[in-house]
Amino acid sequence: MSQSEIPIPAISDIESAYTLVQKYANQTPVLTSRNVNEILGCEVFLKCENFQKVGAFKFRGAINAVFSLSEVEAAKGVCTHSSGNHAAALALAAKLRGIPSYIVMPENAPAIKRKAVEGYGAIITTSKSTQADRENALANVQKKTGATFIHPYSNFNVICGQGTASLELLQEEPNLQAVLAPVGGGGLFSGTLTYVKGFNTNIEVWGAEPANADDAFRSLRDGVIYPSVNPNTIADGLRTSLAPITFEIISKKANGILTVTEEQIVDAMRLVWERMKIIIEPSSAVPVAAIMANRKLFEGKKVGVIISGGNVDVENLPF
Amino acid sequence: MSQSEIPIPAISDIESAYTLVQKYANQTPVLTSRNVNEILGCEVFLKCENFQKVGAFKFRGAINAVFSLSEVEAAKGVCTHSSGNHAAALALAAKLRGIPSYIVMPENAPAIKRKAVEGYGAIITTSKSTQADRENALANVQKKTGATFIHPYSNFNVICGQGTASLELLQEEPNLQAVLAPVGGGGLFSGTLTYVKGFNTNIEVWGAEPANADDAFRSLRDGVIYPSVNPNTIADGLRTSLAPITFEIISKKANGILTVTEEQIVDAMRLVWERMKIIIEPSSAVPVAAIMANRKLFEGKKVGVIISGGNVDVENLPF
Repeated sequence: MSQSEIPIPAISDIESAYTLVQKYANQTPVLTSRNVNEILGCEVFLKCENFQKVGAFKFRGAINAVFSLSEVEAAKGVCTHSSGNHAAALALAAKLRGIPSYIVMPENAPAIKRKAVEGYGAIITTSKSTQADRENALANVQKKTGATFIHPYSNFNVICGQGTASLELLQEEPNLQAVLAPVGGGGLFSGTLTYVKGFNTNIEVWGAEPANADDAFRSLRDGVIYPSVNPNTIADGLRTSLAPITFEIISKKANGILTVTEEQIVDAMRLVWERMKIIIEPSSAVPVAAIMANRKLFEGKKVGVIISGGNVDVENLPF
Repeated sequence: MSQSEIPIPAISDIESAYTLVQKYANQTPVLTSRNVNEILGCEVFLKCENFQKVGAFKFRGAINAVFSLSEVEAAKGVCTHSSGNHAAALALAAKLRGIPSYIVMPENAPAIKRKAVEGYGAIITTSKSTQADRENALANVQKKTGATFIHPYSNFNVICGQGTASLELLQEEPNLQAVLAPVGGGGLFSGTLTYVKGFNTNIEVWGAEPANADDAFRSLRDGVIYPSVNPNTIADGLRTSLAPITFEIISKKANGILTVTEEQIVDAMRLVWERMKIIIEPSSAVPVAAIMANRKLFEGKKVGVIISGGNVDVENLPF
């Protein structure tokens, strides 16, 4: 048992999750570019979760969590508070199981995100934007509906679902020498670590984080979970803090966390957009930026990168 | 023999071209999206030449033209005047054959395009920006070097090379009921018509053109080639006029040319960017816009679209 209330997943848990996830999720492509390889000085394999349903890896965890519920639990629905990709992923997963989803969104959430979540059939509750207000609103929804709260990352099934991206990546490219994933709350990074290190402990697994939201880097360094306080980064998916379960997995298994500047993030995003013609969100550019900023570490290696998603506001780009 | 000095290609010429082209070009993916299909009311298969080398279908024609030269011709190199994708494609094709390429670029060509062409090893001659100046500069280059002029579309081998995109598309999706391609000078559209109609005359083949650069539409309607005069369209690849050879092929084989407004082009570009997470250039959005604007024509059908390229200036987007 782990120090958190959630058990530490094993590679076999991700393999089990995959029997569920592969029924609903896209097997996303692994893309390479000679051009980008030349620029980065290593051979990079992008696992393109920007082509995943709802445009992000979050769909994997949501599917696994929703379809792991018992019939009785499922009948009451699922709920969460989020204004981002997890909300859309959970709403779509619930729709696919034919159960209700209840999403608490802050009143200042962009109309476009609200519309997306509504489009998947979720029932939205609007709350004030403070964390306390959102949690209160969620507690009320749970009390009223009996819906199961699916946390975006502090959840065993969610972490196992996110790990299936690495399963597919290594199925296609088993000889990788390093894998990088972005770190926000640590769900994706924990799933990545669990699968990749379980597959082959010799593969290096690095987290990548904005220097302006380096709470995971500092937490790992000091052995305590620091909250993410007013993170000022364009990588909007990486502003959250670690949970005890993700902190524990990352502390035990990661080779380290690399931090990058905002300028490096935008440069990396631009590189992928211009050279590979795919739309990746700023959070996805963070591990690419980490390779650019740590050339020596990856030189000549075969390096996998989990591209977390492609949801950007095209009217509000950093170029 | 055709009315132009260039013979009309047959489907077998495209098949021959493919033995060359496939050695050097990417076999680009054919992408679909349930989401986009729902919005467009038909089943759309995007042949993604934005993932082609140099970011555009132009590489296919350039490869075929360069590798079709005799040893003696090739030794003297190739030349063209262009500031766009054809210049980059020709430069890279020449580099791959190990022969020189000479590109005449107008002095007002964007520095970034110049750099791209230089990056492929081309020798650049700068001219004033009028058509006459560019043609004079090209004539001088030819006289001095003996290089073969490879026209961007009024060229048999170029047209055959462009047709190989349709060959790959129909290899993957033989049951298409309609295919659309954008129309600029008509090289891509001619190659598309030649292959698709040769494969199955029952497949409808439509050209798509900006209403603000509808010279091909008017030329087809009136049976004469109109020059493209001051075309004011965001679709920068579609501002050129037809040549006798492309006019003849299009007149004989096309089901028609559909025109779209600038607003429709931007909406279609945005749809593909947001829903499919791939970067397509405005010219590529034109046939997608044509489907949106002519819903009845394509309703419920399996429709192929040649996505011509993905070269956009990310600092200068229409959103």
